[in-house]
Amino acid sequence: MFCVFFPHMRLHKCLLVMSHEAAAQSASLVFVCVHREHYDFLETLAPQLNGKVLVDVSNNLEKNMYPEANAEYLQRLIPGAHVVKAFNTLSAWALQNGPSDANRQVYLCGNNPEAKQAVAVISTKLGFTVQDRGSLSAARELEDFPLQLFPEWRLPMRLTVGLTAFFFFYLLTRDVIYAYVNEGKDISFRIMMSLANKVFPSVSLILLSLCYLPGVIAGFFQLYRGTKYKRFPDWLDRWMLCRKQLGLIALALASLHVLYTLIIPIRYYVRFRLAGSTISQIKNNKTSPFDTTMAWRTDSYYSIGALGFGLYLLLGISSLPSVSNALSWREFSFIQSKLGYLTLFFCTFHTYLYGWDRFLYVSQYKWYTPPGYMLCLVVPSLVLVFKLLLLLPCVDKSLSRIRQGWERTGPEKDSKKSLLA
Amino acid sequence: MFCVFFPHMRLHKCLLVMSHEAAAQSASLVFVCVHREHYDFLETLAPQLNGKVLVDVSNNLEKNMYPEANAEYLQRLIPGAHVVKAFNTLSAWALQNGPSDANRQVYLCGNNPEAKQAVAVISTKLGFTVQDRGSLSAARELEDFPLQLFPEWRLPMRLTVGLTAFFFFYLLTRDVIYAYVNEGKDISFRIMMSLANKVFPSVSLILLSLCYLPGVIAGFFQLYRGTKYKRFPDWLDRWMLCRKQLGLIALALASLHVLYTLIIPIRYYVRFRLAGSTISQIKNNKTSPFDTTMAWRTDSYYSIGALGFGLYLLLGISSLPSVSNALSWREFSFIQSKLGYLTLFFCTFHTYLYGWDRFLYVSQYKWYTPPGYMLCLVVPSLVLVFKLLLLLPCVDKSLSRIRQGWERTGPEKDSKKSLLA
Amino acid sequence: MFCVFFPHMRLHKCLLVMSHEAAAQSASLVFVCVHREHYDFLETLAPQLNGKVLVDVSNNLEKNMYPEANAEYLQRLIPGAHVVKAFNTLSAWALQNGPSDANRQVYLCGNNPEAKQAVAVISTKLGFTVQDRGSLSAARELEDFPLQLFPEWRLPMRLTVGLTAFFFFYLLTRDVIYAYVNEGKDISFRIMMSLANKVFPSVSLILLSLCYLPGVIAGFFQLYRGTKYKRFPDWLDRWMLCRKQLGLIALALASLHVLYTLIIPIRYYVRFRLAGSTISQIKNNKTSPFDTTMAWRTDSYYSIGALGFGLYLLLGISSLPSVSNALSWREFSFIQSKLGYLTLFFCTFHTYLYGWDRFLYVSQYKWYTPPGYMLCLVVPSLVLVFKLLLLLPCVDKSLSRIRQGWERTGPEKDSKKSLLA
Repeated sequence: MFCVFFPHMRLHKCLLVMSHEAAAQSASLVFVCVHREHYDFLETLAPQLNGKVLVDVSNNLEKNMYPEANAEYLQRLIPGAHVVKAFNTLSAWALQNGPSDANRQVYLCGNNPEAKQAVAVISTKLGFTVQDRGSLSAARELEDFPLQLFPEWRLPMRLTVGLTAFFFFYLLTRDVIYAYVNEGKDISFRIMMSLANKVFPSVSLILLSLCYLPGVIAGFFQLYRGTKYKRFPDWLDRWMLCRKQLGLIALALASLHVLYTLIIPIRYYVRFRLAGSTISQIKNNKTSPFDTTMAWRTDSYYSIGALGFGLYLLLGISSLPSVSNALSWREFSFIQSKLGYLTLFFCTFHTYLYGWDRFLYVSQYKWYTPPGYMLCLVVPSLVLVFKLLLLLPCVDKSLSRIRQGWERTGPEKDSKKSLLA
Repeated sequence: MFCVFFPHMRLHKCLLVMSHEAAAQSASLVFVCVHREHYDFLETLAPQLNGKVLVDVSNNLEKNMYPEANAEYLQRLIPGAHVVKAFNTLSAWALQNGPSDANRQVYLCGNNPEAKQAVAVISTKLGFTVQDRGSLSAARELEDFPLQLFPEWRLPMRLTVGLTAFFFFYLLTRDVIYAYVNEGKDISFRIMMSLANKVFPSVSLILLSLCYLPGVIAGFFQLYRGTKYKRFPDWLDRWMLCRKQLGLIALALASLHVLYTLIIPIRYYVRFRLAGSTISQIKNNKTSPFDTTMAWRTDSYYSIGALGFGLYLLLGISSLPSVSNALSWREFSFIQSKLGYLTLFFCTFHTYLYGWDRFLYVSQYKWYTPPGYMLCLVVPSLVLVFKLLLLLPCVDKSLSRIRQGWERTGPEKDSKKSLLA
Repeated sequence: MFCVFFPHMRLHKCLLVMSHEAAAQSASLVFVCVHREHYDFLETLAPQLNGKVLVDVSNNLEKNMYPEANAEYLQRLIPGAHVVKAFNTLSAWALQNGPSDANRQVYLCGNNPEAKQAVAVISTKLGFTVQDRGSLSAARELEDFPLQLFPEWRLPMRLTVGLTAFFFFYLLTRDVIYAYVNEGKDISFRIMMSLANKVFPSVSLILLSLCYLPGVIAGFFQLYRGTKYKRFPDWLDRWMLCRKQLGLIALALASLHVLYTLIIPIRYYVRFRLAGSTISQIKNNKTSPFDTTMAWRTDSYYSIGALGFGLYLLLGISSLPSVSNALSWREFSFIQSKLGYLTLFFCTFHTYLYGWDRFLYVSQYKWYTPPGYMLCLVVPSLVLVFKLLLLLPCVDKSLSRIRQGWERTGPEKDSKKSLLA
């Protein structure tokens, strides 16, 4: 029989007909749904709870509110009971509606294996999947789960904010402030669309290349060390763990870039300028001839960009949990690596086509600074060059062997390996 | 040993070598894959089926075809057997290919716990997740599952159709019919694009605000009652349960609005008008000067709209089951609440920028009716104002305390609470 | 107790303190994480491994590297052990981080039920879902899983490449080469955008109609045979199995078509032509009048296209694993069938509107070939006509009865059916 201690008596009338002592006595499994502040009330029931399984489902309002985890505190109060921490990561929603639409995973921990087993059986019956996280000392970790707010997104978001701020102020200076200072023109209205549409793609391209840079660095590390069985430095490990987040932010910015670009022809400013150019052609009575190179260049630029964005979207879709779960490991790495580098190549090439031969003209280097698109081309170009180096037949062969477990060993390592043979 | 009764003998030769009686005798678990109309044939085997587990997998062609559920009817025919309703919600596809690509969930119900356990063991072995729905009286509910056609989408869809029809006829009257009656011009071609592109965003914005209105109302209810432990009225509960659907329809309409807007510059009508404006400027030999305020206003309008749509998409992606399952409760509510209100604010602001100072001009109120964008601003503006009220420090503090379980209690409630202490 | 044999001793110090023999002796479950080339080393431990459960987690670098599966080879080397193939389909990532973010499915096979049960228990404890694939002879299949590279996408991809190549060269000849040969104009720059934007929608529409053609063919087969209990020919079965992939590729091409279409107004070529048309109107001092039919036609064309693409996207979203899992069978077939045919109708109608009355003009049949859009209309039109035939009341009634299990039987079949009654 179960017994449930809820914080509010009048909601659970069953408990009113039985004294707390009788309830505690008769149940073998007790769900403690009381706020931590009221745990001391349970202490009075300690004799009746002796040998019982106490399921602690409590959560705190913020991290590190108390020196010890709620479940550990409960265990200390009633040393004779078997405290199991469970269900706290589930929302009330999931508990009420069953696991069909919400997270199925139930994490539990506790010091007594039988007690954990009893809770696991109930969870499975309710349709949840159980994951045992070990002894009660893991309770703190479990209690921190529902309080997490995108911990793995923090580093990529900070990087994004930093890069965005840098490009914004850099381009603001070069475009708006330069025009104001040198030509006395107020073109501040360009901030909303033109400037934003330069900042978004620049940051997006850099973030995308930062997804692939750690893989390239790891390759060089492995080549240099001659083994894959040495841990990477911590910064590289942490970097590799946030590649997915970097890629998704890059995709979001690329989508905004696409949207902002497609809005261009309905902008008042653009329509005004186009009409002005037509009017001036008529007034001066000379029409500019059609430039086939220009047509080729701009069409290629748009076409490559559209294909690159298509691949970008494909990468994003394949990183949806339900899609990536349906892929085999080889399929996932094909998409994320092969198609990923193709995306990076398309987007970098798109940016080079945008620049075209403009890097030759001195007028482009206002106040001796390079245009924004040049700055954002540095990292992706480096990544692509390094990747090409790794793809050279001789290098690729060594790296493949290392990744299959081969080691470039010194004499003392060989002796150890001979143990195996 | 299993035995399976299929509707067509010649497909299952194993059954032809054995008499029905022998088959029923030798198996401990019998899958009944016969149409309900043929159940009476099983009655003749009742003695052999005594004490056996009968798994009823049948479905009906429509709801309420029969007075009792198929499984209950089977149980009545063969009272000695243990009927378990199961597997009927799975498609033939899932049964043939295993649960890797399709729904893993198997619902079962029955009166005999051991019989249910036996079926549960088989389901688990086949890779499915089992959810026990209780006694055989739940069979009707299980038999209705495969016949469901988006029950939770019905209310939001009706609302959408109603709002769309209203805005369509309202705008048709104000735009097309007004122009025909007052100016004798036939601009009915505008129905396909211009009118649609006014209806979609109006309905979308209202639906989005209707996602957030029940939350605000619930807040005021809780403040007024001083407790969170009282049930909301039924209409509010039902409204809150279809917020996700409201939001997704709003997103679909917003996407159409974006698509229709981006198509604008390739429309024949728009190109004709732009060329006409250029030609008339030349003929009259006066060019309109560049209007910086206009540039600021329109660019802000587009930019805010694009950002709002980006956030909208983010909300949509995070409501995909596999994505929302990967989020902690706090993360999910951060996205759906904080980012949701930001989206609503952006989209409302976008609409205000569209209106700008036009509400000042009498010519806008054709036939004394306000333009469509004004009508659709009412609900979102109210929601944002109410939300701001709830965010006032003093109100927010009370509400937070109530949501953490605090109650503004009268004397008789206090006495009950003292039982806990 | 577990024992794990890893390829590198120095990484697993626990094993250094114990001889291999002692380790093998003391464990009841041995994880073999050694490359296949080193399996012979285990042969020396055969006596100690007698009666033990050996879990083979190995994978090969490519298919068909060895005549027998790794697990079967291991079983042959140590006949006294109970070899279970398992965990090889999981990535190192999933094993390290638990199943929360990656594929939960563990496939296992083996000849000894108790051994499999022991491995299943461990897998479940680790939070994985177990699927038993039968005896050890299934090991080869399991070892091929991680080496699979989109096997079900191969046929649709080949079809797509073939159709794309055909339409590309067909349109290249008719557009670019024709203009060069007959008029001496070089319009090769149109390859990047204009031509691509004709190839994508053509192939997309054909692929979409190929999704629905097999269903129509199957309907006629069932009508002709008078039963649903006869297997379809192999080619039809294989075709039906790749409908999802056909549809998703069609959606990808349709998205590119939308993107390429929306880019049109920012193209240099288009802006040049529009300015040129305005200039020539002024120079010739005659403005073309507004054509209401043209406005209706083009706006309908864009509007239908946008709605069709919206439905297309809906189909795509509903085929995401996590979304389709949340749908009942009836809901899924409503979307994929009813909405699918609506999408096909919208997209076909969109293409007819594009063509309009142009099929009447001889000038359209350059070099006596029909334009590309006519070619791509053949299959979808056929599918829609056939579907309409199947929807005729009398035909629909027969087909519904057949699909509910009714059979048009000859006398010898009737006698068999009477067995049931």
